[in-house]
Amino acid sequence: MKLIRYGAAGQEKPGVIINDKRYDVSAVVKDYNEEFFESEGLSVLKEHIAANPGMLPVVSDDERLGSPIARPSKILCIGLNYADHAKETNAQTPSEPIIFMKSTTSLVGPNDDIMIPKNSQKTDWEVELAVVIGKKTSYVEEADAEQYIAGYVLHNDVSEREFQLERNGTWDKGKGCDTFAPMGPFLATPDEIGDANNLKLWLSVNGEIMQNGTTANFIFNVPYVVSYISQFMTLLPGDVISTGTPAGVGLGFKPPVYLKPGDVVELGIDGLGTAKQHVIAYAKA
Amino acid sequence: MKLIRYGAAGQEKPGVIINDKRYDVSAVVKDYNEEFFESEGLSVLKEHIAANPGMLPVVSDDERLGSPIARPSKILCIGLNYADHAKETNAQTPSEPIIFMKSTTSLVGPNDDIMIPKNSQKTDWEVELAVVIGKKTSYVEEADAEQYIAGYVLHNDVSEREFQLERNGTWDKGKGCDTFAPMGPFLATPDEIGDANNLKLWLSVNGEIMQNGTTANFIFNVPYVVSYISQFMTLLPGDVISTGTPAGVGLGFKPPVYLKPGDVVELGIDGLGTAKQHVIAYAKA
Repeated sequence: MKLIRYGAAGQEKPGVIINDKRYDVSAVVKDYNEEFFESEGLSVLKEHIAANPGMLPVVSDDERLGSPIARPSKILCIGLNYADHAKETNAQTPSEPIIFMKSTTSLVGPNDDIMIPKNSQKTDWEVELAVVIGKKTSYVEEADAEQYIAGYVLHNDVSEREFQLERNGTWDKGKGCDTFAPMGPFLATPDEIGDANNLKLWLSVNGEIMQNGTTANFIFNVPYVVSYISQFMTLLPGDVISTGTPAGVGLGFKPPVYLKPGDVVELGIDGLGTAKQHVIAYAKA
Repeated sequence: MKLIRYGAAGQEKPGVIINDKRYDVSAVVKDYNEEFFESEGLSVLKEHIAANPGMLPVVSDDERLGSPIARPSKILCIGLNYADHAKETNAQTPSEPIIFMKSTTSLVGPNDDIMIPKNSQKTDWEVELAVVIGKKTSYVEEADAEQYIAGYVLHNDVSEREFQLERNGTWDKGKGCDTFAPMGPFLATPDEIGDANNLKLWLSVNGEIMQNGTTANFIFNVPYVVSYISQFMTLLPGDVISTGTPAGVGLGFKPPVYLKPGDVVELGIDGLGTAKQHVIAYAKA
């Protein structure tokens, strides 16, 4: 299945994509949140769709897409999980995964604007494969980890490099600004994408390809990362783990290149669709 | 006002403390969560109590206390915010606040057990003054910051030093384990405690005083910290900011001293009550 949330920001309704068409399922499920995943919502939804062929209300392609999951308890990220990216940022290849967290207030839809924060000079892009947890777990074994995954989402782990690296730690400071986590267009259940550790992913700025990688180059693959994080904290249904970015971020250029108002960022991952974000200057909400 | 949440873990009801006695207010408000603070719940509650003197149902002192606030969108912490603590951990006095995050799954009641994580050798204590945000804000000026504070809570920022410092960053890895954020006994509104930047705070292990400080020694005081964090992310009603710990943590001893099963941790802050936590070994939930 492919899950979407559509409608005005903060008022999104749940939907699904079937054969490239969007359908409303708000009569069946309330939202794609912790309660949904916890209560086997994916199975309920699948059965409902199978039992009602051709009966779901159509959703217009003009509707805005929100993040395909509601605000989770946490957005965890893995730092430097591709050797080529570690190298371009002059960092050592990590001996074990780096974990940091994004404030969940940074979550937005896949095609929403990226707002450069006030006083920011170094807003950067990072295309990433994000994992959505389906069942509560802690201390899960690597061999069992995939049972706890509800699906996968395309994520731009937008990062302010001065806030992240030059403002007296930790990385969290440069990762959680408003609009810094565009997710979507859809959540794909594992059966939709095949091997999560062998997907191409790319990102362009103003039409120029900046990142062009594959998750086959993960230093720590998806089951390893899920198991690893669960040694340090309990994962809840709906939680997000973003798995790191390949080479080609702005920080890696000599001299570095950062986003500015007017820029257009496009990104995609095999089987997870594409997203397009316009960069705007800070404006008070 | 002094707010409590009481009852079995995961099923807490809202209450208040008036003249050292506990009362049930679950008929008036649903829970002390984002919605409560956002919808001026504090004012609603205050008016209800004033209009119904002596009419509130009494709650037994035997009832377990939960965290006085429901799971927030985030628990932010300030690192090394007392010069004496920075010195004992061989860290430089920070030039600007260090921010890190605790997973909100670490939140427990004030007298719940602290569970040492699997594979942990270095579980440590940190008595802290925690601020609870009352209104959504970003880019708030220091002079206006206090308007956005709902109240204050006693917090033990339990920390696993190996996970935090020796396991390939960031600090988040050693801060969010289950039971690592005992909060309470109650949330006190600002009128209850006077100057938040001049409160004594202490912590003992097995009856021996380990920390004995005062928030007058903050490097960055409460309004500064709230304003500072709001430059990097939006603060939501119910969010927690823990303001750092004074000297006397286990890591600061030569050689370091860490918690072990059977230890008893007690802590308190002027005007915010006391808490008592028994330390237990890891046990699968």
